Order: sequence, then structure tokens, then C-alpha cells
Amino acid sequence: MEKITNGEIRPFMVMEVLERAIELEKEGRSIIHMEIGEPDFPTPPGIIRAAESSLHAGDTHYTDSRGILELRKTIAEYYGHGYGVDISPGQVLVTMGVSPALLLVLSTFIEHPGDEIILGDPCYPCYPNFIRYLGGVPRFVTARKEDGFQLRAEDVEKEVCSRTKGIMINSPANPTGTLIDAKEFESICDIGPPVISDEIYHGLVYGEKERSALEFSPDSYVLNGFSKLFAMTGWRLGYMIVPEKALRSLQILQQNFFISPGSFVQTAGIEALKGTHPEIPAMVKMYDERRRYLLKALPGLGLEYTVEPKGAFYIFVDASHLDRDSYRLAFDILDKVGVALTPGIDFGEQGEGHLRISYANSLDNIREGIRRLEKYINGGFNKGDQG
Amino acid sequence: MEKITNGEIRPFMVMEVLERAIELEKEGRSIIHMEIGEPDFPTPPGIIRAAESSLHAGDTHYTDSRGILELRKTIAEYYGHGYGVDISPGQVLVTMGVSPALLLVLSTFIEHPGDEIILGDPCYPCYPNFIRYLGGVPRFVTARKEDGFQLRAEDVEKEVCSRTKGIMINSPANPTGTLIDAKEFESICDIGPPVISDEIYHGLVYGEKERSALEFSPDSYVLNGFSKLFAMTGWRLGYMIVPEKALRSLQILQQNFFISPGSFVQTAGIEALKGTHPEIPAMVKMYDERRRYLLKALPGLGLEYTVEPKGAFYIFVDASHLDRDSYRLAFDILDKVGVALTPGIDFGEQGEGHLRISYANSLDNIREGIRRLEKYINGGFNKGDQG
Repeated sequence: MEKITNGEIRPFMVMEVLERAIELEKEGRSIIHMEIGEPDFPTPPGIIRAAESSLHAGDTHYTDSRGILELRKTIAEYYGHGYGVDISPGQVLVTMGVSPALLLVLSTFIEHPGDEIILGDPCYPCYPNFIRYLGGVPRFVTARKEDGFQLRAEDVEKEVCSRTKGIMINSPANPTGTLIDAKEFESICDIGPPVISDEIYHGLVYGEKERSALEFSPDSYVLNGFSKLFAMTGWRLGYMIVPEKALRSLQILQQNFFISPGSFVQTAGIEALKGTHPEIPAMVKMYDERRRYLLKALPGLGLEYTVEPKGAFYIFVDASHLDRDSYRLAFDILDKVGVALTPGIDFGEQGEGHLRISYANSLDNIREGIRRLEKYINGGFNKGDQG
Repeated sequence: MEKITNGEIRPFMVMEVLERAIELEKEGRSIIHMEIGEPDFPTPPGIIRAAESSLHAGDTHYTDSRGILELRKTIAEYYGHGYGVDISPGQVLVTMGVSPALLLVLSTFIEHPGDEIILGDPCYPCYPNFIRYLGGVPRFVTARKEDGFQLRAEDVEKEVCSRTKGIMINSPANPTGTLIDAKEFESICDIGPPVISDEIYHGLVYGEKERSALEFSPDSYVLNGFSKLFAMTGWRLGYMIVPEKALRSLQILQQNFFISPGSFVQTAGIEALKGTHPEIPAMVKMYDERRRYLLKALPGLGLEYTVEPKGAFYIFVDASHLDRDSYRLAFDILDKVGVALTPGIDFGEQGEGHLRISYANSLDNIREGIRRLEKYINGGFNKGDQG
């Protein structure tokens, strides 16, 4: 595919880091993984039991292409209770993760070559890849460092034009872990083009309450799923909440591309949202402990963040004093002290000079990672090798 | 999305029939379902047990984006043993069903607007939808009735031009249940453009051995999965076997669109291919019994097929003497005698005047369906109502 060979659609650098880390592990090296954006916890047992019951009940067939009605009702209630919004099951389409949901939504947004989607720089690298794949143009707006790399309405407004089809928001964000200011979020929803809000890190917040785009505009397109909060990445289960009038087109695409989401996996999704799972708050507490440890330890190493990250499981730090080239720096750290981190350039030009540190790893491993980074930074490993 | 609103990407008529059938059932009517293209059997218990073990072992995380190595090895061996071909795991990408696999493959084939994919008319309605979604042109070749609506190499050859990027083959086929002649298959593989062979109905054959495109050309793109033969539609698990040099681009798209296929579902896939499941041959035997019953009963009703269908679970019959408009006919039969069938026009212009009869239903239900069709045809229901 030309868009791949000419670099319009790129692989993720985080995958390259991971692949190199695995190579080193095969050579016998010890590697601390702080590159991966995935819960290190298994799925809570109550959710697993629900899947097993469903399997034994014979739920091994296609479902309604929109997802089973009980799950769509449960999702509508979950958002209703969680954010004080009024959602009908007719607004919900269940998907095989947030990524396919984004593919479907962007497919209905980008109708003509050159249609634009506004998104912050830095952002999750899939966003621009999807947009380019569909023949659209990712219109990057510099997300200011002093705003925790979240978008500001006045900056977005300047980029809106007749080709603008939507505005992507991600809060809590990958790669920064920051939340968008509620006033800015509201103002962005008021600009005009529909907001596509990737809310996959909702629930993984530490102190501050995250806000949904649906609180500010009923015409928002919300993407969410079970992967992060419920530690269900391997289940491939997500959903979208969209204006009711938009659902039919999305359903037709879903029928063609995916037929239906998985069957018994959806029963597990109902249990995740409806059941009581003490493992979930326990996981959130552990993420927060790790986060607080890192927020203390990183500045001591000269790795600074401007706005305190209060969600997801990432901290995005400035490492430009070590090397402006974050790709080179990440591989140098990996090779010399065995800590795997994601280069900031993976998330856009504004991310250059930064590193994304994931704390989806045990506190013991994170402590060891910090010891190794200390050695790298202060132990002479970084001297003279970098340009 | 414009391609949906202007009808380029269509919903499936079979879904409309199904929705109408469910409405009638809610009104208390008894409906015999012979429209659905899905095994009526549950997944064999050994496969379910494998998924459960995997869940308990904590396999709830992302896997390698290509799928786990053991499954890719198992698929390579399965094709190696089944067709006497030499496949490496480096040629295999595991997907969430055949539909996403087709989306990925066609995405790498269609590079420029106007690029063409050759396909038979009639064919599975998703094929042209995918091609149009990607900006390509479905170049339909009339599949001759006397060939069981399978493609003939001489007819394909006439349509090949500089814009031709690939040729779709589906054998055993949906909607006809027929197998392509091996010599024609080989000749089509020799024409030049790579063959995309949808082999999802492989294993569901009654007498004749089905052939893989890989037997005729190592450069073929094979799509297959677990849904039909292993009764695993609700698991969303499929795969592609492609030339090794093509895999990297497909993997990059998979990372972006789907991250990875489901985790424990893949363990179940290994067990499906490697384990012994007496339920599988038993299901095949039952499909064949139903098929043979219908092959006797249908001509007695004046519903003729030209070539004996020897695979999948469909029979495609000429009903043009009842009504040339298969859509109107299918809904009339449903409303008057409560038998749900798929209109032939759903599969292309050449399918008009035909009905697809699925035997993915119990022999008792199928017998009742035939009794009702007899009543419809000979009992005066069809008189005077049709144009």
C-alpha cells in the first residue's frame, strides 16, 4: 500500500522499542518495560466467570450487528449514571475495541479527499494514521506544554474551516496522562464541528474527575471500551455513543467490516459494568501509588513535566537536555541500561525531546527502572554519545 | 457517509429479511429460518475448554499484532497438511474474522481510485462494498449458470487490464454452495493478478475435495477462519495466508486498526485446529443429510439448480417462474407462509430471479420449511399477487 510505503501510515515506534527489548531479553538481558500502554493486571475473575457462563450457555453465535441489546442498555445507563447525561441504547454501537470504533466513525466523517479532522500535537499516533488512510487531512493544532499538551479552544477555533469535519479530544490523554480543562472542553464542543472524544482512559483518574464530551454536547461522538479500566485488552471490546441519527450508517459499515462484535465477550462486558469488582478500585489505587512515586522521583533525575498527570498510566517528561532526538535517546537508554521507554516523537513534532514513561508495571520494577535511569543520566552513560 | 447514503455501500438484504422475520415472530408467527448463513450448532466443548484454560492462565492481554506464534505455526501446518503446500508462519496474520482480513488485504491492493478487483456475479455482497469503500472498482464478470455461477478463466482474462489488482475467488461459494472447477481455478491463478481466495467454507464439503489457491500459486492471498467449520462465528477469529513480503504492510494496518486479535480466543483457535473434535465431522454429516434432502425436495417444487452444490450450507435455486423480482418474492413468501429466504439480487444482477436457501437449520425445521414452500407454490398463495 502506497500510504504505508511512502510513510503516510507509520508503524508505532513503541512497537519497535518493544521488539528491540524482546530481542535483548532473548540475549539474556534484564529489561524494565515502561514503554507498554497496557494494564499489567489480569482481568478480574468475576468478569472471566461471566464469559465462561456465557460460553456454556451456547453464546457462540453472531449477535445483533450493533451489539446485544442488554449491553447497549448497560452502556447507556453507565454513562447516564457516571456523567448525568441522557443516553438511549439506540445511540450505542458495540465494537471490537476502540480502534475499530474510530475507523468506523472517521469513515463516516471523511467523505471527500481533503476533509480535515483537527487534533492536538502531540497525540496518539493512530489518529493521524486513520485520517490519512481514509484520504483525509490531520489538521494538527499545537497543544501547549503549559496546558499539559491539551487543546485550547482559541487555538482550535483558528484552524476550523469549511473542510473541518470533526475535532479529536483525548482526556485523560495518551501520551501525557493529563486531563483537559473542563471550560476548554466545553468551549471546544461549542465551536461547531462535532467532537470525537476518545474516553478509553476514563476511570483511570487520580483525584480529579474526568469529564465526558456528552456533558457538553449531545452531538458528540464518544469512544470507549473495556481494555484499560477493566484490564481487558485481549478481549477486544469497545463501543461508541453517537447521535441516534448517525447510528444506521455506522451499523451498515459494521455489518460489512465486522459482521458483529464477539458474543460471549459482550456478556463479560455487561458484568464488567454492572458487577462489583473490588479488583478495579484496587488497581486504580496501585496505579496512583506508582504515579506518585514517579512524580517524586523523575524531577530528581532532571526529567520534568509541566502539568501534573492525573489520569491514564503515563507521564510525559522533557528529556531534551539529554538528547533532542527522542528516538535515538530511547534506544540508547534501552541498550545501555535496559529500560524501555517510548520516544516522544512517536506522538508528533511537539513531542520531540520527550519520553513517555508508562507505569503499567509493578512498583518494584518501576523503582528498578528509576535506579537504572539514574545510572544512565548521572553515571556517565549519557556523556559524549549523543549529538 | 456519502457512499452509504448514495447506495454504493449497501446493507445486506438478508439482514432486512431477518429483521422482518423477527418482527413477525414478535407478533406470534412461526418462522422457519433458512436465510441465515451461520452454523446452527454451538462451538464444540473441547474448544470452549481451551478458551477457559487460557482465561484462567491470565491470557487477557494484547498479543503480537500478527497473532501468537503458536497459532500462526498451527495454521501453516494445517494448510501444509491439508493441501500439500509449504507455508511458513511468516506468511500468516491472525485477524478478528475473515471480514477484517479482507479489509486489510483489499486496503493494500487498492492504491489508487479506479483500481479494479475482478469478482464473479453473483458473489458475497460484502466484496463489492469493501472495494467501493476503498475507492476501487468492482469489475464484475458474469459467472455462468452452467458453471454453478463459478468463474471461468477465459471470461476473467477478457476483463484483466492495467488497473486490475486482484481476482476474488470463493469456493465453496456463498450463495451457491458450488466449487470452482480445479482446472479453471489453476488457469485463473495463472492469468497474472494475484488471486484473493476466500476459503471460509473449506471443510464444509460433501464428496468433492475443495482446493486452495495456494496449491496453484504461492503468491495467492488466502482468507480463512474458524466461524463456519468450527461453529465459532461469535468468537471473531480468522486469518490470512499471504506472500511473506506482503506481511509487513498488512501488520502495520492491523496494528493501527485492531492492535491485535483477541488473546484467549487464539488459544481456542489452536485447539480447534490441533485437537480432535468428533462434533466437527458429525456436523458435516448433518449438513450433508440436509443438503441431500433439499436436493431431492426442491426440484419437486420447481425450484431448480443447474450444478449440484457440494459445499457450504447453501442452495441457490431459480425461482424466476414465481416472480422475476427476488426481493419481492422473498418477502411475499415470508409474509404468507413464514419461511425466511435470501433474495438472489442481494448477490448481484446475475442472482436476480433466484433464492438462496440455507440449510444451517435442523432437518425437522427444513422439512417444515419445504411443506410451507409447497403450500406457497401449489396452494394458490403465489397466484395473482405477483407482477
